[in-house]
Amino acid sequence: VVLLDQTALPVEERFLRLTTVAEVVDAIGRLAVRGAPALGVAGAYGVALAAHAHGEIPDAATLEAAVQALRTARPTAVNLARGVDRAAARLADGAAAVLAEARALAEEEATASVAMGRRGASLILSLVGASRASAVRLLTHCNTGALATVEGGTALAVAFTLHEQGRLGGMLVAETRPLLQGARLTAWELARRGVPYRLIVDGAGPYLLARGEADAVIVGADRVCANGDVVNKVGTYAHALGAARVGVPFVVVAPETTVDLSTPDGAAVEIEDRGADEVVRFGRVPVAAAGAAAANPAFDVTPADLVTALVTERRVVRYDKGERP
Amino acid sequence: VVLLDQTALPVEERFLRLTTVAEVVDAIGRLAVRGAPALGVAGAYGVALAAHAHGEIPDAATLEAAVQALRTARPTAVNLARGVDRAAARLADGAAAVLAEARALAEEEATASVAMGRRGASLILSLVGASRASAVRLLTHCNTGALATVEGGTALAVAFTLHEQGRLGGMLVAETRPLLQGARLTAWELARRGVPYRLIVDGAGPYLLARGEADAVIVGADRVCANGDVVNKVGTYAHALGAARVGVPFVVVAPETTVDLSTPDGAAVEIEDRGADEVVRFGRVPVAAAGAAAANPAFDVTPADLVTALVTERRVVRYDKGERP
Repeated sequence: VVLLDQTALPVEERFLRLTTVAEVVDAIGRLAVRGAPALGVAGAYGVALAAHAHGEIPDAATLEAAVQALRTARPTAVNLARGVDRAAARLADGAAAVLAEARALAEEEATASVAMGRRGASLILSLVGASRASAVRLLTHCNTGALATVEGGTALAVAFTLHEQGRLGGMLVAETRPLLQGARLTAWELARRGVPYRLIVDGAGPYLLARGEADAVIVGADRVCANGDVVNKVGTYAHALGAARVGVPFVVVAPETTVDLSTPDGAAVEIEDRGADEVVRFGRVPVAAAGAAAANPAFDVTPADLVTALVTERRVVRYDKGERP
Repeated sequence: VVLLDQTALPVEERFLRLTTVAEVVDAIGRLAVRGAPALGVAGAYGVALAAHAHGEIPDAATLEAAVQALRTARPTAVNLARGVDRAAARLADGAAAVLAEARALAEEEATASVAMGRRGASLILSLVGASRASAVRLLTHCNTGALATVEGGTALAVAFTLHEQGRLGGMLVAETRPLLQGARLTAWELARRGVPYRLIVDGAGPYLLARGEADAVIVGADRVCANGDVVNKVGTYAHALGAARVGVPFVVVAPETTVDLSTPDGAAVEIEDRGADEVVRFGRVPVAAAGAAAANPAFDVTPADLVTALVTERRVVRYDKGERP
């Protein structure tokens, strides 16, 4: 499995060559690969690695341990466990079948991205109205581009599609503390594609929405619950509150693999706390006294009533019209 | 004028000895001194320096230029212009009178801090109710302690008072990007006083409020407008939205010198944009590609309807009961 190491961006484009399940689990845990759809694909390829291990046929206990380690490498995004389970369901058919399943998932996510981009762009244009549709300004959080998926993206696929249509006025990109996926990854992807953007601190999102500097908010999701609650990168909920306050559409873009009808609501989701280190340091730079305590929820829950619509590769769910996933 | 250089905290306790108006203007501009009350005092001492310059009697044009440079060193906090104007009003009486006026302002701000701490603590205890009053948990943003004032603080004076009364359960401290006044300064002040705290990224505030992890939000202000709107460090508004959503009291603590009845509302306040550098770098560490654009409003506006109460050294203004400043 060859991955672009996202922890090194934007300073360095470094590729990781992962040959063991332990290396995949480690890459997932330290966010070298991240983003709900990409996690599902990485998990599936991890199972393929387990099945291929050392050219030998692994025993059932080893495989079971590998599958468990992969599916629990991170708890919040439903895609990881789903991707692992889907690949693992083919273990009885041999390593080649598992690899084929992982490749099929990757292919499906790439195809889904194109559909999400088109559906989302069309929805955004209708939501913002004719006066803004020639130069839509979007606010986004975290990274939902090719780096979070396989190619294209989820929410960012919508921005790319609007850009290709000549209808994107510009992006406000929230930096996304603590790990700065917005500043490091989204800004990097937008710059490579020539999309105009301005970086902002996360706390500025609601105020810039109140000042009228974005026509819609678009974000991805790590899990969409049965009642419509959206679990996504911490900071998402604040933008949703800011958008609702001033009537700006708040649109969630995620593949069907992220929609989990077996999770009733956001309160039922385990929210990963990634510990103090990410908060008290900034990369390698300490920002608070050593030993400072921190709360570091990596995700938050945006209640369904703050969401205008969910866009998947198959459908548009208009929360604002009473629909739910 | 001797100042603790706040840009060097918490790594280093470095004092600045400022001997010219230009040095004071520079220290204000780069935030070596910051916080609305402290800015007012620094501005007043700046005028005293101008009046004393080189032991000679400066001409009127020089003094006028110095006063203008000081009062416009930063635009948003009303205290700066007020402190400068108050000291400048004594210029006709000679350098000693100006210095006395600056000292009087500093003394008044220190006294105000004690009163704000007491009034605020009493208000918080009544707002959170008996079940929480034995161990109140507060969320705060930016730095409103001794570093922002002369001694004690504004919002942080309330926390210190509750701590002295044995009634503080702990603090959630939002790091306050881009310049991390929460992580660098508030955490440092709380640790020195033995107040338990957990640092959080700004985007986590609304979610932790939704999870019930704070009983009230307390913040300072850079300007309180006639209609009650509160201009404060960017990110404040997001916490206010999060508090209002779940019915957690949102309390603003500021001296009367920050209340400006001549400013009708938040829309009338010039919000300083401090440029891209603070956002695209972290200290000296680049977080986004060089040349990345950014929007960097240093403050935001919290509309009056999201505020529960304003505490000054003289009064408690219960916004939640329809009162306004």
